[in-house]
Amino acid sequence: MCRIAAYQGPDIPLERIVTRPAHSLLSQSRHATEAPIPVNGDGFGLAWYRPDMTEPGLYRDVLPAWADANLQNLCRMVSAPVFIAHVRASTMGETSRANCHPFVSGAWSFCHNGQVPHFAAIRRSMDAALPDALHAQRQGTTDSEMIFLTLLALGLADDPAQALRALLPRITPPAGAAPLRLTCVFSDGARMFGFRHASDGACPSLYVSGRLDSGGRAIASEPLCCQTTAWEALEPDTLYCLSHGTLTATRITP
Amino acid sequence: MCRIAAYQGPDIPLERIVTRPAHSLLSQSRHATEAPIPVNGDGFGLAWYRPDMTEPGLYRDVLPAWADANLQNLCRMVSAPVFIAHVRASTMGETSRANCHPFVSGAWSFCHNGQVPHFAAIRRSMDAALPDALHAQRQGTTDSEMIFLTLLALGLADDPAQALRALLPRITPPAGAAPLRLTCVFSDGARMFGFRHASDGACPSLYVSGRLDSGGRAIASEPLCCQTTAWEALEPDTLYCLSHGTLTATRITP
Amino acid sequence: MCRIAAYQGPDIPLERIVTRPAHSLLSQSRHATEAPIPVNGDGFGLAWYRPDMTEPGLYRDVLPAWADANLQNLCRMVSAPVFIAHVRASTMGETSRANCHPFVSGAWSFCHNGQVPHFAAIRRSMDAALPDALHAQRQGTTDSEMIFLTLLALGLADDPAQALRALLPRITPPAGAAPLRLTCVFSDGARMFGFRHASDGACPSLYVSGRLDSGGRAIASEPLCCQTTAWEALEPDTLYCLSHGTLTATRITP
Amino acid sequence: MCRIAAYQGPDIPLERIVTRPAHSLLSQSRHATEAPIPVNGDGFGLAWYRPDMTEPGLYRDVLPAWADANLQNLCRMVSAPVFIAHVRASTMGETSRANCHPFVSGAWSFCHNGQVPHFAAIRRSMDAALPDALHAQRQGTTDSEMIFLTLLALGLADDPAQALRALLPRITPPAGAAPLRLTCVFSDGARMFGFRHASDGACPSLYVSGRLDSGGRAIASEPLCCQTTAWEALEPDTLYCLSHGTLTATRITP
Repeated sequence: MCRIAAYQGPDIPLERIVTRPAHSLLSQSRHATEAPIPVNGDGFGLAWYRPDMTEPGLYRDVLPAWADANLQNLCRMVSAPVFIAHVRASTMGETSRANCHPFVSGAWSFCHNGQVPHFAAIRRSMDAALPDALHAQRQGTTDSEMIFLTLLALGLADDPAQALRALLPRITPPAGAAPLRLTCVFSDGARMFGFRHASDGACPSLYVSGRLDSGGRAIASEPLCCQTTAWEALEPDTLYCLSHGTLTATRITP
Repeated sequence: MCRIAAYQGPDIPLERIVTRPAHSLLSQSRHATEAPIPVNGDGFGLAWYRPDMTEPGLYRDVLPAWADANLQNLCRMVSAPVFIAHVRASTMGETSRANCHPFVSGAWSFCHNGQVPHFAAIRRSMDAALPDALHAQRQGTTDSEMIFLTLLALGLADDPAQALRALLPRITPPAGAAPLRLTCVFSDGARMFGFRHASDGACPSLYVSGRLDSGGRAIASEPLCCQTTAWEALEPDTLYCLSHGTLTATRITP
Repeated sequence: MCRIAAYQGPDIPLERIVTRPAHSLLSQSRHATEAPIPVNGDGFGLAWYRPDMTEPGLYRDVLPAWADANLQNLCRMVSAPVFIAHVRASTMGETSRANCHPFVSGAWSFCHNGQVPHFAAIRRSMDAALPDALHAQRQGTTDSEMIFLTLLALGLADDPAQALRALLPRITPPAGAAPLRLTCVFSDGARMFGFRHASDGACPSLYVSGRLDSGGRAIASEPLCCQTTAWEALEPDTLYCLSHGTLTATRITP
Repeated sequence: MCRIAAYQGPDIPLERIVTRPAHSLLSQSRHATEAPIPVNGDGFGLAWYRPDMTEPGLYRDVLPAWADANLQNLCRMVSAPVFIAHVRASTMGETSRANCHPFVSGAWSFCHNGQVPHFAAIRRSMDAALPDALHAQRQGTTDSEMIFLTLLALGLADDPAQALRALLPRITPPAGAAPLRLTCVFSDGARMFGFRHASDGACPSLYVSGRLDSGGRAIASEPLCCQTTAWEALEPDTLYCLSHGTLTATRITP
């Protein structure tokens, strides 16, 4: 499992979400409270947007987030109106930057917390289903990156809700298999999306904040606590979109 | 806090201690049961000896041990009659190889689990007390490396018990300060030593195994479990020496 | 371009080939003399065999070889009868361990120096042509790993010469494109193979030594110099096999 | 030897100095033309200032600069009015972040290109001469960091020229020894300083640009070329100070 924290609103230093709150993403990397594994030490990443540029900046490394002084500096110095950060807990294999979230393609960035339990069995067919241009962007080996590229192939840019609806049948495991868990946060630089789904109903957690001091709002795996604002759990099977401070919800019937 | 595992006896693959047992050092790096912090993800290291060479091999990296495929390979392929491994939990600062244990000097290797609470206050004077040759070997910034170099300066090679006796007053904090915690395992390639001490009596754990299947014995922060042999907790303030399968104990009155 | 050094014969410390000779692989990583780029600082790797184990050990990292103290230690401490080492010069992209050579599958290890100029165009079809079991082993994004998996699919284990003959038409670029360059060294733990080919005749260099002091022989991108033994350039389009100190050659007509 | 590039003037994206020019610092990391070693692959670093913050941001890593996608992203996304970047060529030892430049203390950042040939002999006395507060900041083992801390101890913040004058006798080698080489660039966030000195007159190169398109000016080990502006070599034994676009020079008689 992994932990995610994202923000949309007026420019704030990244540290206000990522490293400073009492239960910041950095804190969650060591002491997650709503995940089966409390430690997320298998790499981290950060995508942030500038209003005058389409493509986000991307910073990823294989160290635990808590051990990286560069991350502390970056979060202190860089301000942005939209950003997503992720700390990773891998269940297997060696950590590489290419397998760290967020994944980025054009204006889009994407973070995932969950698992496609039968990914080994469907990896080839998902791979084969990608258009050439997206196939060429594949850099790592994770199910998460494959989900992102597949969403793009299914029209994420035009209709995110429809892309999710088309995705779910493709990655839902056969009856009797371990459950699909899919909690994801993604952005095109203007809107911030959050979505949770699990084939057995047990979705990884995801919350949205009320209005923060900055006037913006956050979406995170666990409430960042120190903000004087209420946090609400997001409903499963519903695509939430944060845009200009307003949260809209679209039902995704799988 | 950190976790340590060491072995002395007939040649065995390192994996028999480091990566394969049910509660191997690798397992303890994620799920330590007798330490205040269960995760030791701030680097690791390994020193191993060859009968025909004086200086041990040293392998250290800043990744969590569980994320390093090289470590798995090394432990599977390399056999040794004497070796020490360490996984690190840092309380502060950036991880660097120079701050990972074991530390090595000539034939000696040294691992530490504990803290010198007032190290910032005594670092300069400890530094100044080192002979030139040892001072020149200092590569990092930890209290652990400084303890090792100081032990060498105090005659570790000639009389380990006496060196420890001379060390303790130099690093014991003043009354009212946080306690000194000093659990260490060290070797000259022939003998394996273990020692625990705390100024408040609450020493980090350390155990010695009975005779393992290989005929050798292990010293470890926590029993490796899967071995069909009893483990005994080492008494505080006593220097244990494992040599040719025999354990001797020397009282260290501080 | 990259540099390769390999050995077969009686057990020797890896340092005798990798780090100690005047023009060792380590030296070639900084000062290659027969390559268009003299610096090979984009990661390195090492595969070595034990007589009593089928699968080789694998050690790879993304640092320049010259900056890795672990590599120095490993090469000093570990002896083997068969091993391959590689230093990498990447023309593009971020370095990851998964893209460092050697690649390993079962008993086989494989290093490559060269390029498939139109790899982006044929990557999908090469990918699709792999059997499931080999497809599942793909960890990185390089043409080199794909060549290795394709050779395995084409029967490398049964008939290496035939596998190479079948490979070449699959990766030869169309007329007018940049040339294919393929110099590779690979082993099954008993035999060491070397092969050079280029669609324009300009193959990356590859040499075989005479009998070294140890009684074994080496294959390397550039002579290691300090050995008191003659080095011969290997002929292009010929598969060389070093086994029990004897070199045999098989013509590969593409 | 190392390569340095720095900027002062109106805000520009870091990439305009670090990664984009034809002979950018990134290009110099692979193909330095005015240094004895053309490759600077032993780590890199970046310090940049925000007008509203005293302490600079710091980003350092041990990879070669050319292999770090994070650096590319950072330089594309971050703009600053004052920044220094450095690529490192180490002559010995393992690379660690603590030994990468720039070094930072409070508002000051410092990069060095050169060598104190007898540093091993004077390291202890330089160490002993540091006030406690600066001694406690020492993180690595380089002569460069020691020079920086010593300059601070000698009053860098009050009178940089005087601090340099006081420094030189402390680090000048005895007659007959290898020469001292000291080319350094440093900043307090408002002013950018450059200085070259060598005890044998053979200083590492350092240039200042004329007015760039942005209206600012750069100081660099080698001209960045693509700028349509003349570059001048800085005179040895002269402290240059770039402030609000004006360059002043102060003679440093050693």
